[in-house]
Amino acid sequence: MRIAMGIEYDGTNFHGWQTQAGSAARTVQFILETAISKVANHAVTVHCAGRTDAGVHAIGQVIHFNTTATRTLRSWLLGSNTNLPSDINLNWVHNVANDFHARFSATSRNYRYTILNRPARSALERSRAWWIYYPLNETNMQAAAIDLIGTHDFSAYRGAGCQAQSPLRTINYLKIYRQHEFIYIDIGANGFLYQMVRNIVGVLTTIGRGDKPVNWAKEVLCLKNRTLAGVTAPPQGLCLIKIDYPYHFGLPTT
Amino acid sequence: MRIAMGIEYDGTNFHGWQTQAGSAARTVQFILETAISKVANHAVTVHCAGRTDAGVHAIGQVIHFNTTATRTLRSWLLGSNTNLPSDINLNWVHNVANDFHARFSATSRNYRYTILNRPARSALERSRAWWIYYPLNETNMQAAAIDLIGTHDFSAYRGAGCQAQSPLRTINYLKIYRQHEFIYIDIGANGFLYQMVRNIVGVLTTIGRGDKPVNWAKEVLCLKNRTLAGVTAPPQGLCLIKIDYPYHFGLPTT
Repeated sequence: MRIAMGIEYDGTNFHGWQTQAGSAARTVQFILETAISKVANHAVTVHCAGRTDAGVHAIGQVIHFNTTATRTLRSWLLGSNTNLPSDINLNWVHNVANDFHARFSATSRNYRYTILNRPARSALERSRAWWIYYPLNETNMQAAAIDLIGTHDFSAYRGAGCQAQSPLRTINYLKIYRQHEFIYIDIGANGFLYQMVRNIVGVLTTIGRGDKPVNWAKEVLCLKNRTLAGVTAPPQGLCLIKIDYPYHFGLPTT
Repeated sequence: MRIAMGIEYDGTNFHGWQTQAGSAARTVQFILETAISKVANHAVTVHCAGRTDAGVHAIGQVIHFNTTATRTLRSWLLGSNTNLPSDINLNWVHNVANDFHARFSATSRNYRYTILNRPARSALERSRAWWIYYPLNETNMQAAAIDLIGTHDFSAYRGAGCQAQSPLRTINYLKIYRQHEFIYIDIGANGFLYQMVRNIVGVLTTIGRGDKPVNWAKEVLCLKNRTLAGVTAPPQGLCLIKIDYPYHFGLPTT
């Protein structure tokens, strides 16, 4: 039997999603497998929709696993949450067909990147936003972002160590807007290369500061050379918001 | 010379505002005095507008202190922030007249209490909101709250150990509204008794759950007996938003 779960975590104290062989680092995968295995009463291996880096948060991560245990959805939810530390929790549990795969069934991924744009740093936002003290022009950032929407070879926005076979990805939307001192960057795509969102944010903030012209995002894209792009935005501003699946799997849509 | 500062902090790892004689607890006051004294190059004693409890946050705390040091406002700001840990920071610095007092000059205080009202707990909101899993009726909470607005004897909403001489306070506004899974309680008053906001929130949530009728908030108020009121809401949902001062002191209004 296959079970899917919606997961939320504060990435601050996790060494990312993936458990490395031989490493004792605290990963989301290890903490989840430990908690769920206790409820299942057998060892469980979980697969996620999007492997997040150290410091990256999630409110809409999705996982699946196989189990021989018979539990109610409520027992899975309450039992797992009881065994999980306070910086990670389940939001929902669903029975899914055996052809469901958290990663391979996903049709799109949705992330939000949050920038705090003001002169003084912020104690309350320190682990949830990238503090940028110089003024950013979010209108120019949005103008530049439009060039990235659609299907492109994103080699220039791909982090070192990326294991994806193809650098082609399709960005469905890329919206930048300001609310007071915050700038939000909402992005959805069929998939992302390693550190692709954070590299896009790095390029857009360089444009927002005025260090590069609006057409630079497209220029970097066309050159297909990562070394030409700017900084990689830090992880704490990034949050995995939602994974989309075909309707027939019956997973929650909010 | 007298200096005023706007302070933000994440209350999670502080034992409240006030340094207790003989105690080594990590307080906001102690951490601030240590950092500012380094910049002033002499021992500084700070006075705040509102003494917050352990776990309570602030984005708009105001302090003042006297100094013989001559520094630019920028030097006070950058120097103090450099000496402060990541969970507390200055947002602004102003020169003020010698008759300014962070506490006694304040004309009103504004707080927000945040409730997360949904079935599952939340990793990302665990230190910023009170998680209530049963449904709350925010319309009934607002209806009950209206009875508390104005000048009243708030003895029934006063925490044990409160040192205020008079239990009379004037609530200027008390607004309750829902945004998706969050319920916000915004409250402004000329001043608050010890734990008054958290006791009001405790009474309103009891009404919101349907355990007590809408007129219970007024009933508790009229009986002037703290032991009749309900739970004290936990500290992590509370945030000091803003302190108001007479215009002539020239402090930032946002």
